[in-house]
Amino acid sequence: MLNSTASVMEEYSLARWARQLKRSALQDMLVVGSKPDLISFAMGLPAPELFPIAGFIEAAARVLTDESSPLQYAPPFAPLRTQIVKLMARRGVTCCEKQILLTVGAQQGMNLLVRLLLDPGGQVLMDEVIYPGFQQVVEPYLPEILTVPHDHESGMDVEAVEELLSNGARPAFIYAISNGHNPLGASLTEAKRQRLVQLAAQYSVPILEDDPYGFLTYENEALPPLRAFDERWVFYIGSFSKILAPALRVGWIVVPETLIPQLSAVKEASDIDTSTLTQRLVSAFLHDHDVHSHIALLRRTYKSRRDAMLEALDKHFPSTARWHAPASGVFVWVEMPEEVNTLDLLQTALETVQVAFIPGQAFSVGRAKPATNCMRLNFSHCNEERIAEGIARLGQVCLKQ
Amino acid sequence: MLNSTASVMEEYSLARWARQLKRSALQDMLVVGSKPDLISFAMGLPAPELFPIAGFIEAAARVLTDESSPLQYAPPFAPLRTQIVKLMARRGVTCCEKQILLTVGAQQGMNLLVRLLLDPGGQVLMDEVIYPGFQQVVEPYLPEILTVPHDHESGMDVEAVEELLSNGARPAFIYAISNGHNPLGASLTEAKRQRLVQLAAQYSVPILEDDPYGFLTYENEALPPLRAFDERWVFYIGSFSKILAPALRVGWIVVPETLIPQLSAVKEASDIDTSTLTQRLVSAFLHDHDVHSHIALLRRTYKSRRDAMLEALDKHFPSTARWHAPASGVFVWVEMPEEVNTLDLLQTALETVQVAFIPGQAFSVGRAKPATNCMRLNFSHCNEERIAEGIARLGQVCLKQ
Repeated sequence: MLNSTASVMEEYSLARWARQLKRSALQDMLVVGSKPDLISFAMGLPAPELFPIAGFIEAAARVLTDESSPLQYAPPFAPLRTQIVKLMARRGVTCCEKQILLTVGAQQGMNLLVRLLLDPGGQVLMDEVIYPGFQQVVEPYLPEILTVPHDHESGMDVEAVEELLSNGARPAFIYAISNGHNPLGASLTEAKRQRLVQLAAQYSVPILEDDPYGFLTYENEALPPLRAFDERWVFYIGSFSKILAPALRVGWIVVPETLIPQLSAVKEASDIDTSTLTQRLVSAFLHDHDVHSHIALLRRTYKSRRDAMLEALDKHFPSTARWHAPASGVFVWVEMPEEVNTLDLLQTALETVQVAFIPGQAFSVGRAKPATNCMRLNFSHCNEERIAEGIARLGQVCLKQ
Repeated sequence: MLNSTASVMEEYSLARWARQLKRSALQDMLVVGSKPDLISFAMGLPAPELFPIAGFIEAAARVLTDESSPLQYAPPFAPLRTQIVKLMARRGVTCCEKQILLTVGAQQGMNLLVRLLLDPGGQVLMDEVIYPGFQQVVEPYLPEILTVPHDHESGMDVEAVEELLSNGARPAFIYAISNGHNPLGASLTEAKRQRLVQLAAQYSVPILEDDPYGFLTYENEALPPLRAFDERWVFYIGSFSKILAPALRVGWIVVPETLIPQLSAVKEASDIDTSTLTQRLVSAFLHDHDVHSHIALLRRTYKSRRDAMLEALDKHFPSTARWHAPASGVFVWVEMPEEVNTLDLLQTALETVQVAFIPGQAFSVGRAKPATNCMRLNFSHCNEERIAEGIARLGQVCLKQ
């Protein structure tokens, strides 16, 4: 619980869910991680030196001088939807403009869909270890959280999903990160993808497919997202945060056209419009540049950083630690022996060697045993040298455990 | 209900509240209003020719080349909070940085506060004629809506608020627009302000003070907002949309410091950050320019447009119509004789004279008699000539009723 919540509760009558509000470990880390002397593997930050700044300066000058009032309230910028249709085609997804809603990043996409689908106290289904930002989205609904275990390489246990559904569970949706899972790094196999969308259709339970990392793949082309297998039961959530820049806050969802009016109303209620200026900056950038060569640069850079991290882990971490090479995304998930508590380890690492990561328990949900012996390590933000140095330092602390 | 909702419901299981989702009249108008041949008094749009474009082009070039990664995820931009403290001081409000949370416009500010305070099915208290965007914010909670009548010049009936509270009503909050009420144009008298905050404190019910128009005042300086009278029970919602530009999507709330950690968590869950880029554009603009001389320009221009509208109403509208000169804001509220239906009138106006406005019933809430004989007219967007022309045309249609 937030330190101040008890005193707040004496004074103000908060909504029931907010009385147990926990402080976000990730938000704390964003503040800690901004100290210059720290090597942080905590946040899922893109490499800032790769932001295509020059392209955005050009775009800003042009967009701001355009006659059509880029600073006014406006309907969603139509050309950007067309550009997203093309982008999705590169991922093997066939969709059209009328199925696309522009959002303030993937995080808002989740919120809009959850708002439309979930009743207070309703059921939701997700991995037992999952992105905390999604837990935060459903928390105010005080939902019944159903969880399934996972395999470290192939992700969500789809048989466990089937068991829940065949035993009568009727969640408002299944939340799934198909590529470069946050925090596990896993990507679903093709067989799991097919089976999961079959289940969704069979039981009429939509899948919220969160896919911020789908373009960031390192072995070969990623498998197509779940949305490529089913357009009726998969609601896709995409974002420019990891392929262009997070501070633009532009993302999108792809849903059956029939849901767009409802979602537009939910979106309007949330913040009226997505910034017309940032929508148009993204659109201008996509118009002027080959985004796929930019994505190729990101893939080369992040692959090299991933490999540097894997090599350093091999060299410096105790032999009892376990991890897998992620084929996609920006995270490596490390499992330490059961008796290691990574929250304590973090404390020591911050104090003695100035290295940060996110401890596993920040990702645990529901009744599952908290992943107290795990840690999530990001490899997209630091360069190879810093990664080698940081993992070496962290390895020292691990060896002392 | 949305046309498509019935068919959607056959296919997908939406949350209970969404099954009755109505299409937003304002969103429709934003699309209609973008036709070039139409004179639209519908939306609350600022005058685009007054957007300080040159200042933003300069700001964009500087901010984007700054070393500190303006495109990265980042904590809220601290200098902007300091600038907001100074801005609030000009309104007679004493506050500090630690009481300020940056938001995606006022609309998100409302959402965050409602999320923190309102339980499903809880009570909320507001005017019986009110900004539909706020109705949309509370709608998903399926709340018990308590309404109070209003006086056309002095706004909310504060005695009616007292009656509700003394009879045992305990709403999660009182929603109030103290200056340039949307849609009524009314501003609360000083006596009403004092009484309302007394009631809030006496009954421990916070006021959500929505104040997007507080800087836009035409007779003399506006009275200080409710927040100036009480810092414990008034949660203030402000925005740069009407004083700089809506497409930046930057606003703020001022709340007791003790609530900031909770609201920060709700904000993070909503969309992670407010665009660092647009936060910094606003901050750079405020640093380089005297925003108060820009606001003075807006006040002169909008006063002249308001006066043009009042003059045209006098000249062209039937003598049975009633309105008041708004001392603040961007709307005139016109009451036609009881038997006039302004939804029909709108239809005729669009078809025969190509003039748009928002009919009163779009603003009616709860069990109050819908304001079917009223219309909201915006005077900030069109220049004096267009206003005179549009009101003359609309007057023709009214006279035929």
